[in-house]
Amino acid sequence: MKQTDVLVIGGSATGLVAAMTAKSDHPDKQVTVIRKEEKVMIPCGIPYIYGTTESSDNNILPDGGLVGLGVEIIVDEVVSVDAEAKSCQTKAGETITYDKLIIGTGSLPAVPKWLEGTDLDNVFTIPKDKIYLDELQKKIDGLNKIVVVGAGFIGVETSDELNKIGKEVVLVELLPYILGATFDEEFASDAQELLISRGVKVKSNCGIKSITGSGKVSGVTFSDGSSLEADAVILSLGYLPNTTLAKDMGLELNEFDFIKADQYRRTSIPDIFAAGDCAEKTDFATGKLSKIMLASTACTEARIAALSLYELNTYSVFKGTVGIYSTCIGDTAYGVAGLIEKTAVTEGFNIVTGSFTGVNRHPGKIEDAHKETVKLIVSAKSGVILGGEVLGGRCVGQLINAIGIAIQNHMTVHDLIMTQIGTQPLLTASPAGFPLIKAAEIVAKALRK
Amino acid sequence: MKQTDVLVIGGSATGLVAAMTAKSDHPDKQVTVIRKEEKVMIPCGIPYIYGTTESSDNNILPDGGLVGLGVEIIVDEVVSVDAEAKSCQTKAGETITYDKLIIGTGSLPAVPKWLEGTDLDNVFTIPKDKIYLDELQKKIDGLNKIVVVGAGFIGVETSDELNKIGKEVVLVELLPYILGATFDEEFASDAQELLISRGVKVKSNCGIKSITGSGKVSGVTFSDGSSLEADAVILSLGYLPNTTLAKDMGLELNEFDFIKADQYRRTSIPDIFAAGDCAEKTDFATGKLSKIMLASTACTEARIAALSLYELNTYSVFKGTVGIYSTCIGDTAYGVAGLIEKTAVTEGFNIVTGSFTGVNRHPGKIEDAHKETVKLIVSAKSGVILGGEVLGGRCVGQLINAIGIAIQNHMTVHDLIMTQIGTQPLLTASPAGFPLIKAAEIVAKALRK
Repeated sequence: MKQTDVLVIGGSATGLVAAMTAKSDHPDKQVTVIRKEEKVMIPCGIPYIYGTTESSDNNILPDGGLVGLGVEIIVDEVVSVDAEAKSCQTKAGETITYDKLIIGTGSLPAVPKWLEGTDLDNVFTIPKDKIYLDELQKKIDGLNKIVVVGAGFIGVETSDELNKIGKEVVLVELLPYILGATFDEEFASDAQELLISRGVKVKSNCGIKSITGSGKVSGVTFSDGSSLEADAVILSLGYLPNTTLAKDMGLELNEFDFIKADQYRRTSIPDIFAAGDCAEKTDFATGKLSKIMLASTACTEARIAALSLYELNTYSVFKGTVGIYSTCIGDTAYGVAGLIEKTAVTEGFNIVTGSFTGVNRHPGKIEDAHKETVKLIVSAKSGVILGGEVLGGRCVGQLINAIGIAIQNHMTVHDLIMTQIGTQPLLTASPAGFPLIKAAEIVAKALRK
Repeated sequence: MKQTDVLVIGGSATGLVAAMTAKSDHPDKQVTVIRKEEKVMIPCGIPYIYGTTESSDNNILPDGGLVGLGVEIIVDEVVSVDAEAKSCQTKAGETITYDKLIIGTGSLPAVPKWLEGTDLDNVFTIPKDKIYLDELQKKIDGLNKIVVVGAGFIGVETSDELNKIGKEVVLVELLPYILGATFDEEFASDAQELLISRGVKVKSNCGIKSITGSGKVSGVTFSDGSSLEADAVILSLGYLPNTTLAKDMGLELNEFDFIKADQYRRTSIPDIFAAGDCAEKTDFATGKLSKIMLASTACTEARIAALSLYELNTYSVFKGTVGIYSTCIGDTAYGVAGLIEKTAVTEGFNIVTGSFTGVNRHPGKIEDAHKETVKLIVSAKSGVILGGEVLGGRCVGQLINAIGIAIQNHMTVHDLIMTQIGTQPLLTASPAGFPLIKAAEIVAKALRK
């Protein structure tokens, strides 16, 4: 029997940040993290263990921050929670009672039930599980023809990495282009062309029908009637909230099985909070339920939950998921924040868009100069920036954050063209041709008409 | 005799952006730029013509944007303006009448009157003048020992470049550290150490007393009594507004000789606007007169002036200079936005600061990972972010813009810790250890006490 003030279930991004924030804010409280994994993977780094970091051992979330603050880490699994008694049972037979509970159980890879052959050997998913991933990496070492199904960020990054270490990779995507769910066509098609030029075969506009083989994978058949030989299949078809435990303890789930959670990340049961992939989210722009799962958003939610444990603050409020993503293929990076054009239109927004392509250094003759394109998606009536997409060099990762901050401040394009920026020859585009400002100018000019 | 609707005097960043914005916004109006230079230098690129771009010819502001829009370019110099008659006389003897006039005459290098020896051969300044700079570059080619006086951005970047092409460079600075006027000590000292490690000799805490030589430079004497041999001296002691023409035409100047200009960049005479280095600026935070000159701020002012020519818009208002700078020494970049700690204290702000050092990739084992430090300067009472300083890899150029946008939106640290960001292993720090958010957390925690 163990007693703690704050119990955090889950040791990934959510659990780590929730526990650190809670302990840092309340040094007098006992904060405990319980997690299944001895070593926790850095979630976004998982696709890079094949080529870039070479081993999952180089992609571990350090425990130093938790330990340094005095957070207790228990490696075990909560099997049931009695919410009335505020008590957990663990797999190892321990009973832990708590005053406040934060659930950060994350998500699990989606595997379509209708898909035949997913139980064959060498069919893999990409869970955030070091033991599984190490096994996957070891097995794949001896295999050559890899079919990756689903060209979201994880699928694209994994394909590029496997290609980098010499595998013959075919990436299959139902949409017309890779990354097509998160980027408008001009960005998605650019990324696809680049990935193909690096050696990955892309089979887009095509669904998977079945995985074939006897005992282990030997091939894949597709919706267009074609088929391919395959030594391994990696399914990267998105993630589902891991909420069985939450459901069993009586927490309300929403229609997509996320734990219902309010703007302070409070669930339907007092003193229980949920954050990250397992917790309900609404979209920042539309207010609709969102299925976006991002480690960065999870960290924001974790901070809010932890800061709201013992008292509410007007400022610790989750305002809905903006959805800020970036990725990198070779020397080109792609970023997106908020609504893209096609989603905005589908959702019924009356929008104006503006795109500008420049160079991310000035003059453009600087050695590492890279084309830089910014597209803004803007509400036609209010001028408010709903979303942005960027393509450029590696600094796209921070440029998209600048756009994300603009969106979260409800900035208009008129505000943006009056906004001062810093520029430097070796670091950014020129002040006269700064793609972010030029794209805003183009939209603002259209709005003035 | 020539008639134009909009006449823009000056062809650098201000003139370019003012003319393009005016013509783009009013395609029916005739817009004319008059400038002295056949070819205009990219101002921020000037320090890089020695090593990085190798020639001033690789650092030219392209005329394509102006020409494409239908802006007329006249290479000539306005020698006088009759504001009542709305008429200019040029050096070539032309008379040009206008309806609206935008003055973007920029700035000229400051040369202290008390300093002896500035008229010797091989004593240079750094004007934005291609003919002068080409001559400088040609002369310096045969010289070895270069003393650069003044370690602001231009002085530091020029020193680093001259060192790169094998010159023996001594950089002299009155303050304890290079870049000491724009960065707090911990950032300035880091930059100084790095510059020294690259081979530039830094003589800080030291003023120049005189430049010695007969006919041409042979040495420099310093305030500490020491002296140095020198083949050339480059003075980078800041810039003064180039406002003789403005003064002669009867425009009101402020106590620092900048052209008085309101929030729409209107001067004391109707239909005459001023923007950029020559125009009066106030500080975004303090409201005090500012002497900061930045091409990026100049572009913002130019846009506002051009958008306010024929009608005012509530949104095209210059809210004061934030001051967003960045620079790069080798692989390390430094950025600053708004008030630094020492300035905030001097101005009487009750502040709390927070610094966090992390890594700009995750995991930190990614090949091009670089230390990343963010410091935030925050108003103690309101939590409003007054300024930020950053040190890191090349993406600092965009990270400081994210901070600049936060400052211009009057964000508090409480807002910032609730702000969603995008993160990616190859592009940014981890979401759990994102220095910008962690620095905000540190300040917010201090404020809650």
